[in-house]
Amino acid sequence: MAGKVFFSVTMSLDGFMAPEAVPAEDAFSPEKQDDPGVRRWMTKWSELQAWLFPQRWFRENLKLGEGGEGGEEGIDNDIARATYERTGASVMGKRMFDLGEQAWPEEAPFHTPVFVVTHTKRDPWERPGGTTFHFVNDGIENALDQARDVRISGGAETIQEYLDTGLIDEFSITLAPVLFGTGTRLFDRVDPDRLALNQARTAASTRVTHLTYTAVKR
Amino acid sequence: MAGKVFFSVTMSLDGFMAPEAVPAEDAFSPEKQDDPGVRRWMTKWSELQAWLFPQRWFRENLKLGEGGEGGEEGIDNDIARATYERTGASVMGKRMFDLGEQAWPEEAPFHTPVFVVTHTKRDPWERPGGTTFHFVNDGIENALDQARDVRISGGAETIQEYLDTGLIDEFSITLAPVLFGTGTRLFDRVDPDRLALNQARTAASTRVTHLTYTAVKR
Repeated sequence: MAGKVFFSVTMSLDGFMAPEAVPAEDAFSPEKQDDPGVRRWMTKWSELQAWLFPQRWFRENLKLGEGGEGGEEGIDNDIARATYERTGASVMGKRMFDLGEQAWPEEAPFHTPVFVVTHTKRDPWERPGGTTFHFVNDGIENALDQARDVRISGGAETIQEYLDTGLIDEFSITLAPVLFGTGTRLFDRVDPDRLALNQARTAASTRVTHLTYTAVKR
Repeated sequence: MAGKVFFSVTMSLDGFMAPEAVPAEDAFSPEKQDDPGVRRWMTKWSELQAWLFPQRWFRENLKLGEGGEGGEEGIDNDIARATYERTGASVMGKRMFDLGEQAWPEEAPFHTPVFVVTHTKRDPWERPGGTTFHFVNDGIENALDQARDVRISGGAETIQEYLDTGLIDEFSITLAPVLFGTGTRLFDRVDPDRLALNQARTAASTRVTHLTYTAVKR
């Protein structure tokens, strides 16, 4: 394998990468948007990702405005773009795919092969713009044999599974100044005694701090 | 009140400020040092604080070597020293005091008045070097009327209590590249919806990242 295996997520200061789960079919259902649980999920998710929405790269990638019109440039934008550009393939769990299948635009925002780890058998699903979803039933190692870097996109369980195998070379956390209190913790169920971390790089904007660590199995 | 109220703690990347509790009387008892729970506590605590032990200020303050001999200088040292120098008074909970009463040297490392929030009545306890412990039984606000900044030293419950009152102006977290898995979380039991945070300053060394936030009640 030529590339590195990494993940890059935004985490609340108290360690969560997602608000308390609501059923995927509710989160993006128009008639459920007034449900208190769904509203709380959306509010919390928006607070967590607030640094990303105004970035030029984000707006370009989702084709908001003309060529990212009105988007910010700076450290946050540079890091978001660099993360995207190094990624040759993405890996995600079934729950994240289920949520995204309803949330992504037709031109899904990956523009790489995406390996969905699932027990479900399904033919590859090709989207316009270079994203093809492959449904992988035989374990996670097979998804990693790529020329460029492989991003473990999420969710938390999939990231934890990869961390525990020792297959993650490094990871980046964008630490957001919000508290969740409840939700899905990034590092729950990772065995802390099997993983030694080194702080590799740090960069801060006025909004968030970007932290990169290398991981070694011990 | 003229000064600010702040706290400054080291936190593991997964959100803990202390390993799983062992009884204070065990942690520093010579005959309990081989107990697996005590050893794990010490190992984890040492990993968390590893950035601090080599600092020149830390060695000076605990009178290790001659005037901090052999200590490191740099960002970590500057920040540790600045935190100490701005502090006009310290506040701590009873459990932190109980642990420290056994762990601190005779010249306790505060060199300020220290207000211990407790139900126990006890006369002030003066130590050499300018530290006097005052045992406060009538709530936390009274401890805050100081000319210089007041540091809420800990433990977690005391910090959480002050955060929830809205009395904390700002706080600093030294984020260490270690995972605890279990222990005492810094932000457990803080109501996330009552607190709005802003990232104020970030500084990174090769060891850790120092994060400072301002807190506003909402």
